[in-house]
Amino acid sequence: MTFQEFQTWSQDRFQSILKADYVLPNVDAQRLKDAMTYSLLNGGKRVRPLMVYATTRSLSGDLQAADQCALAVEMIHAYSLVHDDLPAMDDDELRRGQPTCHIAFDEATAILAGDALQTQAFQVLVQPIDGMAPQQQLRMVQTLAHASGLAGMAGGQSLDLEAVDKQVDIEYLQNMHLHKTGALIEASVKLGGLCANASEQQLSYLSVYAQAIGLAFQVQDDILDVISDTRTLGKPQGSDESRNKPTYVSLLGLDGAKRKAQDLHQQARDALRKLDADTSPLEDIARYIIERTY
Amino acid sequence: MTFQEFQTWSQDRFQSILKADYVLPNVDAQRLKDAMTYSLLNGGKRVRPLMVYATTRSLSGDLQAADQCALAVEMIHAYSLVHDDLPAMDDDELRRGQPTCHIAFDEATAILAGDALQTQAFQVLVQPIDGMAPQQQLRMVQTLAHASGLAGMAGGQSLDLEAVDKQVDIEYLQNMHLHKTGALIEASVKLGGLCANASEQQLSYLSVYAQAIGLAFQVQDDILDVISDTRTLGKPQGSDESRNKPTYVSLLGLDGAKRKAQDLHQQARDALRKLDADTSPLEDIARYIIERTY
Repeated sequence: MTFQEFQTWSQDRFQSILKADYVLPNVDAQRLKDAMTYSLLNGGKRVRPLMVYATTRSLSGDLQAADQCALAVEMIHAYSLVHDDLPAMDDDELRRGQPTCHIAFDEATAILAGDALQTQAFQVLVQPIDGMAPQQQLRMVQTLAHASGLAGMAGGQSLDLEAVDKQVDIEYLQNMHLHKTGALIEASVKLGGLCANASEQQLSYLSVYAQAIGLAFQVQDDILDVISDTRTLGKPQGSDESRNKPTYVSLLGLDGAKRKAQDLHQQARDALRKLDADTSPLEDIARYIIERTY
Repeated sequence: MTFQEFQTWSQDRFQSILKADYVLPNVDAQRLKDAMTYSLLNGGKRVRPLMVYATTRSLSGDLQAADQCALAVEMIHAYSLVHDDLPAMDDDELRRGQPTCHIAFDEATAILAGDALQTQAFQVLVQPIDGMAPQQQLRMVQTLAHASGLAGMAGGQSLDLEAVDKQVDIEYLQNMHLHKTGALIEASVKLGGLCANASEQQLSYLSVYAQAIGLAFQVQDDILDVISDTRTLGKPQGSDESRNKPTYVSLLGLDGAKRKAQDLHQQARDALRKLDADTSPLEDIARYIIERTY
């Protein structure tokens, strides 16, 4: 299977899982459900589900379990975007070319939709999985919760808020990104590993890989923010710079940021080599992150 | 042990548990942690932990497990208050006489603090519990997630938003409260039951009890909103009425609301009688809810 084929397979599989009954239950609160559905279905590249599936397949794991993990991690991602777009946060009116949740609905509904998407992520993750030990499923919840909360993504968002209009150094920026975006990417890969009953040693190599590509993803984002135009990117070009947010490019220069991305790519490849498995989808993802143009 | 003694025991126990290391980990995101701590420590009556402990003790369950459940459910409650107070929601500047989280910090931090408190609730709930079957702990996560999200509290909040400035009937109001406040009270009682390995039959009686007192709590809130003064209540008297929110009093009249509270009290007592256990703390809570004056 080529990477292109794998991507298509992953996206098709995820798209069909999104329609499963347990994704969002039927409820009286129809407007809230509509806002959650709107936010969840507003496409995107589905990078995190892709990473769950790539890891599970690399280690010949359980694909039904991977479905639930992919859904859960994408719901956390979707909730974070809804809240990130709010007026009190980034105040964005467009996301992937569509009105953001608080524009399409209203601010109060967007707050609740983000809240309930987070809850639903955990709800989905604890649906019974055939043949999966409850202990392993509990560990999945621990992994996702750790990556999402104070010690992970939410903590990173807060570090990001504190950095606006401040002089921060490269260590602060890196730490912020390791939390803000890296933690959930790491969780995607570890969840994929847990679906395959990966050993502790394997999980630690997966973490090194994931942290490297998570940072590389952000470095590449900063590079693209400078060199791409608005049309390709789906958001105003230079939008980070205009809000005085520190970026890899502003701290390292464009060439320095490109070298950083290459170094991280190498770290990711080194970690995969130690895994002793057919990790070609994971290798392809690392390359894709570095080479992407939008 | 009198009910007063039990309340003191429960509050002291919960207060000491709040100081445990695993409640909020040490992180770089200090401002976020401060906002979470601020919101979590802003007292209140700790009704939900009280209900967890009362149920666990009534059924001679595991108190260490009850600690984690009490923390988790109180974190969900705290997160919901932080988000409920936001300008886009109820726009409250005071909560229990203290500045609300977005006033004491800022709006973006309050959004994140609520988000991360929710995550931390699940994180706390999946900490290993000595002697507890992983299957049972998974069920606790299912119970809390179901009660908190689209089909529970968040759904109820959304129904509440939709009801403002609208004519709603008593069924709508009741359904809204069963979700908005009732679901988490029901979860508290069921979690307490799960800490004691309660049977399915016992869990269903506990649900009936909890739904009745959850509604009674809300009916009493509406009554108190009309008859108490601001000083005793800690929020402006008549604040619901002034925002055109439907209440039990506006729909049933003051006497009708009082009769409703008594009926619910009776339903709760009937359910407890079937439990076949020493449920005196649960009986006391039901009475306390009806008789409270603030």
